[in-house]
Amino acid sequence: MSESTATLLVSCADRRGIVAALAQLLYGHDANILDADQHTDARAGVFFQRIRFDTAGLRTDRTTLERGIEEVAERLGMSWRLAYAERVKRVAIFVSRVDHCLYDLLLRHRAGELACEIPLIVSNHPVLEPVAAHFDIPFRVFPISKDTKREQEAREIELLQSNDIDLVVMARYMQVLTEQFGIDFQVFPIDAQNRREQEKRELALLEERAIDVIALARYMQILSEKFLERYPSRVINIHHSFLPAFSGGRPYHQAHERGVKLIGATAHYATADLDEGPIIEQDVIRASHRDSVKELTRKGRDVERVVLSRAVRWHLEDRVLVYGNKTVVFS
Amino acid sequence: MSESTATLLVSCADRRGIVAALAQLLYGHDANILDADQHTDARAGVFFQRIRFDTAGLRTDRTTLERGIEEVAERLGMSWRLAYAERVKRVAIFVSRVDHCLYDLLLRHRAGELACEIPLIVSNHPVLEPVAAHFDIPFRVFPISKDTKREQEAREIELLQSNDIDLVVMARYMQVLTEQFGIDFQVFPIDAQNRREQEKRELALLEERAIDVIALARYMQILSEKFLERYPSRVINIHHSFLPAFSGGRPYHQAHERGVKLIGATAHYATADLDEGPIIEQDVIRASHRDSVKELTRKGRDVERVVLSRAVRWHLEDRVLVYGNKTVVFS
Amino acid sequence: MSESTATLLVSCADRRGIVAALAQLLYGHDANILDADQHTDARAGVFFQRIRFDTAGLRTDRTTLERGIEEVAERLGMSWRLAYAERVKRVAIFVSRVDHCLYDLLLRHRAGELACEIPLIVSNHPVLEPVAAHFDIPFRVFPISKDTKREQEAREIELLQSNDIDLVVMARYMQVLTEQFGIDFQVFPIDAQNRREQEKRELALLEERAIDVIALARYMQILSEKFLERYPSRVINIHHSFLPAFSGGRPYHQAHERGVKLIGATAHYATADLDEGPIIEQDVIRASHRDSVKELTRKGRDVERVVLSRAVRWHLEDRVLVYGNKTVVFS
Amino acid sequence: MSESTATLLVSCADRRGIVAALAQLLYGHDANILDADQHTDARAGVFFQRIRFDTAGLRTDRTTLERGIEEVAERLGMSWRLAYAERVKRVAIFVSRVDHCLYDLLLRHRAGELACEIPLIVSNHPVLEPVAAHFDIPFRVFPISKDTKREQEAREIELLQSNDIDLVVMARYMQVLTEQFGIDFQVFPIDAQNRREQEKRELALLEERAIDVIALARYMQILSEKFLERYPSRVINIHHSFLPAFSGGRPYHQAHERGVKLIGATAHYATADLDEGPIIEQDVIRASHRDSVKELTRKGRDVERVVLSRAVRWHLEDRVLVYGNKTVVFS
Repeated sequence: MSESTATLLVSCADRRGIVAALAQLLYGHDANILDADQHTDARAGVFFQRIRFDTAGLRTDRTTLERGIEEVAERLGMSWRLAYAERVKRVAIFVSRVDHCLYDLLLRHRAGELACEIPLIVSNHPVLEPVAAHFDIPFRVFPISKDTKREQEAREIELLQSNDIDLVVMARYMQVLTEQFGIDFQVFPIDAQNRREQEKRELALLEERAIDVIALARYMQILSEKFLERYPSRVINIHHSFLPAFSGGRPYHQAHERGVKLIGATAHYATADLDEGPIIEQDVIRASHRDSVKELTRKGRDVERVVLSRAVRWHLEDRVLVYGNKTVVFS
Repeated sequence: MSESTATLLVSCADRRGIVAALAQLLYGHDANILDADQHTDARAGVFFQRIRFDTAGLRTDRTTLERGIEEVAERLGMSWRLAYAERVKRVAIFVSRVDHCLYDLLLRHRAGELACEIPLIVSNHPVLEPVAAHFDIPFRVFPISKDTKREQEAREIELLQSNDIDLVVMARYMQVLTEQFGIDFQVFPIDAQNRREQEKRELALLEERAIDVIALARYMQILSEKFLERYPSRVINIHHSFLPAFSGGRPYHQAHERGVKLIGATAHYATADLDEGPIIEQDVIRASHRDSVKELTRKGRDVERVVLSRAVRWHLEDRVLVYGNKTVVFS
Repeated sequence: MSESTATLLVSCADRRGIVAALAQLLYGHDANILDADQHTDARAGVFFQRIRFDTAGLRTDRTTLERGIEEVAERLGMSWRLAYAERVKRVAIFVSRVDHCLYDLLLRHRAGELACEIPLIVSNHPVLEPVAAHFDIPFRVFPISKDTKREQEAREIELLQSNDIDLVVMARYMQVLTEQFGIDFQVFPIDAQNRREQEKRELALLEERAIDVIALARYMQILSEKFLERYPSRVINIHHSFLPAFSGGRPYHQAHERGVKLIGATAHYATADLDEGPIIEQDVIRASHRDSVKELTRKGRDVERVVLSRAVRWHLEDRVLVYGNKTVVFS
Repeated sequence: MSESTATLLVSCADRRGIVAALAQLLYGHDANILDADQHTDARAGVFFQRIRFDTAGLRTDRTTLERGIEEVAERLGMSWRLAYAERVKRVAIFVSRVDHCLYDLLLRHRAGELACEIPLIVSNHPVLEPVAAHFDIPFRVFPISKDTKREQEAREIELLQSNDIDLVVMARYMQVLTEQFGIDFQVFPIDAQNRREQEKRELALLEERAIDVIALARYMQILSEKFLERYPSRVINIHHSFLPAFSGGRPYHQAHERGVKLIGATAHYATADLDEGPIIEQDVIRASHRDSVKELTRKGRDVERVVLSRAVRWHLEDRVLVYGNKTVVFS
């Protein structure tokens, strides 16, 4: 995306003349429309539009342009949001101990697939610090226990704000209240020699303890309501099932139990209702009776990666409009 | 599938020597193994195998062969089932008013894709009679109301038995208890001239009345337990969602409501628990915010067709073993 | 699609103000824009747009509207095409002996998926007449031999014109010059009793003679240049491979020979260069070493059906713009 | 895969009793069959089988077992290959400058998805050394020019042999004869600060020079015949198109030119005929008129990764049998 472009996202009650009003306005400011896509939900009578335009030849300054948009918006009862490509979005990635989504996002970022900066990786566990180091990204650990949750989240919010973060991506971030359940963080110091052995121990522990996660996941929010209010439609989570099937904990175990022939992943905006937020993207992969939970987990990683990265890219390109509990995703 | 083949399906607790015992037995009878596939569920310790062999050069008669299999089976505590290709399976298709799955099965049958005979189409509604006539297949109507359900099912079972039916395929068969809900069968006589108009009226009615189906579908079995006991793992149903998501009625409406990005279909053996039977096959198709319920219904038809026909074909080729509430599907 | 809508397709050299000019024009005539999608080929500097609008509230008559569009078009050097939904397109289907694409199109048409009339089915062979009869559509046979090709085509064009045909769909239409190769049409009279036997004989013959098709397909056009000039970008063909792989004859045999792990189908506008026309849609299905040519053919039928029907639907909805040897397909 | 298992792959002319002979032999040695899959190419009359068995309870030693297999093999005219899981295969990865396939293989390896050791990464360019370092894997650079090709390859073979390498994976390894075409290796020293800028320069250069690759790729082998003779069916290459479409250089450019609606990737065993070797796996992803070559390249990376890693995994699990110019891949 060239740096001299901007993207306007609007929604309003459907009526005659919206498209013309906006096109005329942009033309009047010499903003060349590069791309425009619209959608009308006929049943609800709501109009949505995404317009990407060139700002290089703008006859006026931005304040004037935005004042113009605001005037049209008021006249037509329109919500709008304008993003300039040169204002690169800033993304924080939240992770726990599973690394495949993290690597995937960082590699795509380096390959130029994700138009953003990633100034910060946040975790409740130190194990992925070497990954952050390999990509030269600051890594901050906030261990969370029942008693510190509120306070730690406050610190996280502070950190996000001081870093001007626009989007939080939960790349398999799993917050487990530890003290209450006797699961405290065991630290596994890692170096080149013992890496694989340590990881095996960790995975074994994770597997063993994961049993508690089911119960947890069902009654508590991963992030508190307060946190999410600060970042409405700006926290993307990846859930490793084809929602609404297998919400809650251990979806691959659930899928194995039910004997499904496809497994999936869902990227959605996090809301206070766990796994109930607006869905941005989903995909599936074929499974069979031959697949143990371990195999499903392996296959699932490929889908999780692809689904999460698509959702993040679309968000960064201002293609996603939330609408009730659903999304409009302009292609 | 050539007519001189047979397929043996076995399952038992896993132990050493099963494969050798069966291979040796067949070799001893000069039965050439054409295909063999096996699976072991390591956790449950259960062994499954499918062996397809040539019966053309059998040294002994079938009774002797089967006695031999029974001896091995007793020794190894094995369940088994033997199907000869020359004994072509007989399939009854149950339909209501929606015709795409019916046409699909009949066309595939005529194209030689389904190794079976289809001597019977059963419906609770007369509307699809012309389809049956086009393919020269007897069509029998059993309207079902709350009071006649038990009695009509008894007649259906009788008809199935007198026709030696091996498999029942519910190709969008939807049994609605009518009197209780004031939905009685309206008959729309159809000829070449008025077909489209009549269909529009029917669809409108179906749409309008379908609201009741949700409630119905959730509390009642489509087929009674008694019916299903007669045909255990021999009634295949197509559900128009990716189960366990959107079980119950009106899955495309539910999918639209939730804003999913893929819709699916599931073919499963019917059990007394509606939509909970062992899954044979599933697939999905991409959807977007642009798709109304009508569009989802259109897209879904393509998946339903493909999923149902695969499940039927695999069943007919003796590829499916039910196991707990899951299936092993040999490819 | 409601009857009071119209679709405008335009393309021109990219420049500022096109979107505004068209939106303003339509607004000026009180035409409410329902849907608008655009694409700019940045490298070639070409702009494309599809606008669907409501004509119910048009302040002026159509002639005035069209004069308005023409004025804008002249000013901006724009090509345009306007289609009114109430002018339902008329489609002729060309088939030979293979019926799966024909049934598929006719069933989708009856289910309301294809916004068109189908007043005519044309074949070089009588075998599919009963299918046409089942759907109450006139069926015309034009057997083609080397000597009669020119003359028969002239009659076909005449028939198409007298029927006001807008689109020709070649649903596995295969024109074999018969005399030259000693392949003359064998007629297999069909009734309810002998249908399957006759079909087996036909398929055997088709299989046996198909060997000649390779050579044929490579040197001759399926339809003559003269024919195609009359219907530019209005003849859709289905080729049973993922083009450009396996162009020419017997693609499933070629695919089997090469050992590919996916097989596909391609719907494209027919041009004088066989299998080289602009691609509208493609899809694939998984294959394996287990698939004989017969199995590939069976699997391929599912892809052919879906791909052809999508291409036809998109064409009918005025979503496809041809551009060089490629297409823009508005979603 | 547990360490006490072994996998036997056999092929021979089809005849009665093969399955029984092998099953009996293994049973006689107390080797419990865990998994067995077979395939018969009916047309060619060739039989293939893969048997995975437990060696924990072997009554005899391996030499005796292998002698037993050899006896059966001689009697039945059978080719065979036996791999013990405890003898972990050793893989060398060849790369040039593109890193996505390399990262993917290394991450999957670390996650336990690939049952092998990776003691060596070989490149004709130093740029990916930091990736190897991050995963603690030795990295060796062999720049290749027209004059040094033969000699460098000899050194590579020597290195592979001294490292006991079983499999070579070409993870986007592209050998460009440099001097002849005036393309010499430009070294871009990389550190944390300048990484992105250097990469941009490199990519620009790669893009600019890639024009020559077409010609090159078409007349020369990537690896010499001598090299491939040493590693028959043991060099896996990833080609970034759905072969046989778009063989040769710059497949994404070719795909863009032709306007295809899907792009793909193919993993195959390298042979002296470039892009003509036996195909192990293929997959595709949807594309549209909106995708520039850059977008196709981005999308294609996801398919390349998945396809290459599947092919490597299947090879490592002894699931692939080469047969003529095709493969049998046991699932």
